[in-house]
Amino acid sequence: MRSIHPSAYISPEAKLGDHVEVGPFSIIHANVVLGDRVKVGAYCEVGIATQLGDGTPLIIGDGALIRSHSVLYESSSFGEGLTTGHHVTVRENTIAGTGFQIGTLSEIQGDCSVGDYVRFQSNVFVGKNTTIGNFVWILPYVVLTNDPTPPSNVLMGCTIEDYVSIAAASVVLPGVTVGHHSVVAAHACVTKNIPPNMLVAGVPARVVGEAKTIKLRDGSNRPAYPWTHHFTRGYPASVTADWENNEGDDQC
Amino acid sequence: MRSIHPSAYISPEAKLGDHVEVGPFSIIHANVVLGDRVKVGAYCEVGIATQLGDGTPLIIGDGALIRSHSVLYESSSFGEGLTTGHHVTVRENTIAGTGFQIGTLSEIQGDCSVGDYVRFQSNVFVGKNTTIGNFVWILPYVVLTNDPTPPSNVLMGCTIEDYVSIAAASVVLPGVTVGHHSVVAAHACVTKNIPPNMLVAGVPARVVGEAKTIKLRDGSNRPAYPWTHHFTRGYPASVTADWENNEGDDQC
Amino acid sequence: MRSIHPSAYISPEAKLGDHVEVGPFSIIHANVVLGDRVKVGAYCEVGIATQLGDGTPLIIGDGALIRSHSVLYESSSFGEGLTTGHHVTVRENTIAGTGFQIGTLSEIQGDCSVGDYVRFQSNVFVGKNTTIGNFVWILPYVVLTNDPTPPSNVLMGCTIEDYVSIAAASVVLPGVTVGHHSVVAAHACVTKNIPPNMLVAGVPARVVGEAKTIKLRDGSNRPAYPWTHHFTRGYPASVTADWENNEGDDQC
Repeated sequence: MRSIHPSAYISPEAKLGDHVEVGPFSIIHANVVLGDRVKVGAYCEVGIATQLGDGTPLIIGDGALIRSHSVLYESSSFGEGLTTGHHVTVRENTIAGTGFQIGTLSEIQGDCSVGDYVRFQSNVFVGKNTTIGNFVWILPYVVLTNDPTPPSNVLMGCTIEDYVSIAAASVVLPGVTVGHHSVVAAHACVTKNIPPNMLVAGVPARVVGEAKTIKLRDGSNRPAYPWTHHFTRGYPASVTADWENNEGDDQC
Repeated sequence: MRSIHPSAYISPEAKLGDHVEVGPFSIIHANVVLGDRVKVGAYCEVGIATQLGDGTPLIIGDGALIRSHSVLYESSSFGEGLTTGHHVTVRENTIAGTGFQIGTLSEIQGDCSVGDYVRFQSNVFVGKNTTIGNFVWILPYVVLTNDPTPPSNVLMGCTIEDYVSIAAASVVLPGVTVGHHSVVAAHACVTKNIPPNMLVAGVPARVVGEAKTIKLRDGSNRPAYPWTHHFTRGYPASVTADWENNEGDDQC
Repeated sequence: MRSIHPSAYISPEAKLGDHVEVGPFSIIHANVVLGDRVKVGAYCEVGIATQLGDGTPLIIGDGALIRSHSVLYESSSFGEGLTTGHHVTVRENTIAGTGFQIGTLSEIQGDCSVGDYVRFQSNVFVGKNTTIGNFVWILPYVVLTNDPTPPSNVLMGCTIEDYVSIAAASVVLPGVTVGHHSVVAAHACVTKNIPPNMLVAGVPARVVGEAKTIKLRDGSNRPAYPWTHHFTRGYPASVTADWENNEGDDQC
């Protein structure tokens, strides 16, 4: 049983799983594999072919929700539970894990690697060749760059390690690594590598202290980081079972 | 008399006022009330239902203009004269007053309160739980945040008081109040509450002086703030009649 | 021979060149002239008429590629080889030269002048009355502003001279001129005029040194600027023939 809106165009070569839904005016191109229970909203174009793809299909895992006006190219792959906002663009050759959430107006320029349970809020920009670990949070209007001397032929993608949180409107310069469990404050410009477990802030960003010294603002006086000690919303129980028992840096 | 493009889908349950126009390929869902003379451009999806709405309809007041590729969810309400740019997204449970203008690519994440005659230029981001007063101006690429320690379950929306002007690419941190008639310079990061009538600038933003000391750049040597003394474009005469006679801070 | 998707709406008054392609669900309005081999993707609205146009048509030169979900108004003009990303908006009365590339989510607010071979990456915002020279590069999330005391009736567009490169997430304040061959570092706020051939960085941006002192990050130890000495990708040979023989500032 599928639910394809009569105004949608589905290539007869596209492979659709069970219970796929495609909304009004959407287009599913030939080189596409949609898992079971994938929902595609209105005005989406899925699986655009270009010379930049490597010929492999766009693969969308089971249970995805792709909101309206989004555009995805061929030769990328997403694990189970992809969720996109509206007006999202993902170019070729990006490989993402399970539970990836991409906020409204975000763009991934291609040739990127994204781990499991990564969450982008709105209007996040990810340049080509970026590497993002697991359980990373990227807040609105963050820009991950890649060209150290634009324009050039040198593409140095950023590396964002596991459990990093990058707050709104920050920029990470080309080739920079943000260490696991570190936190980038809002509106920072990260110009050099950040060690693990730190809080950085400012333009250029400097280490302000250890992330674990930041307190939650809920009156509890508990540390806000590692965030896995207090925040589990939307993650499967199999993943969060270990989180609350962990102490400090031990889970790294 | 209505003008509904033959390619549009209008739910028979949607309530449409007189002289409503709906453009090509647009979708009006069931739980929607459009006032008289509302114009919806092409590729808009209006009244998306989710579990986050409170069951009330999306209400769009008389005379609205919703430009193409915009997306509005149910359970929000807009007074007369709403105008949106292209590619705009507004989520559930936002209540806005008269004459709201939302620039191209702007996003309102829901559960917000917006006063009368508020104007957003392009690409403004408003996080959940934000409170915006009357006659506020927000310039391009401004980000109003809400999570003080992302990710967390603490949502502290900003409060932007009446007649505030926030210049391009500034960020306001969670829970911050910008006092009435204050001005935030471009590319600032507002980390703490701003008293009324001030000019703030920088990262982090600091009070530079009183807003009224800024001069208009038109050669007149007149103060640029309060802006109501020299700028009336697009406001109804009933609203601006009082503005030009006011002196300094008196209109607050 | 043209290829017009059956779901597209083409005004009978629009003038289409040879080998024009128009994708699904796109709209070409009456006051439009498309050159030969122009390709318009899906969900584009081309040639919107308003009272702000001067009555002249939207003119798109030969060989253009307009990607999906883009919106262009009447009374603008683009030379040969225009390329846009997705979700692009261009308002009225902008005149652009040959080989203009406009990245995904970028917006040009109208009444702008753009030279030859200008390249915008994603999410670039250009306010009204901006003047951009030839061979300019503008990276993601750059904002070119125009109102020195928002809101006001004073519109002071920026001037970006030839061969300038503005890195990601920078803001240029109203009326500022960035001199030819200068480089604006990422996340800078340019508050006053920049002489030619400089590197500026910071908030507010200050001159850090001469642009030619920046080295390429490819291990070669060559200067990164002028970029025309090492970067020619995508420019026609007729244009780049002179570049590599030039020395230092001589090509200005």
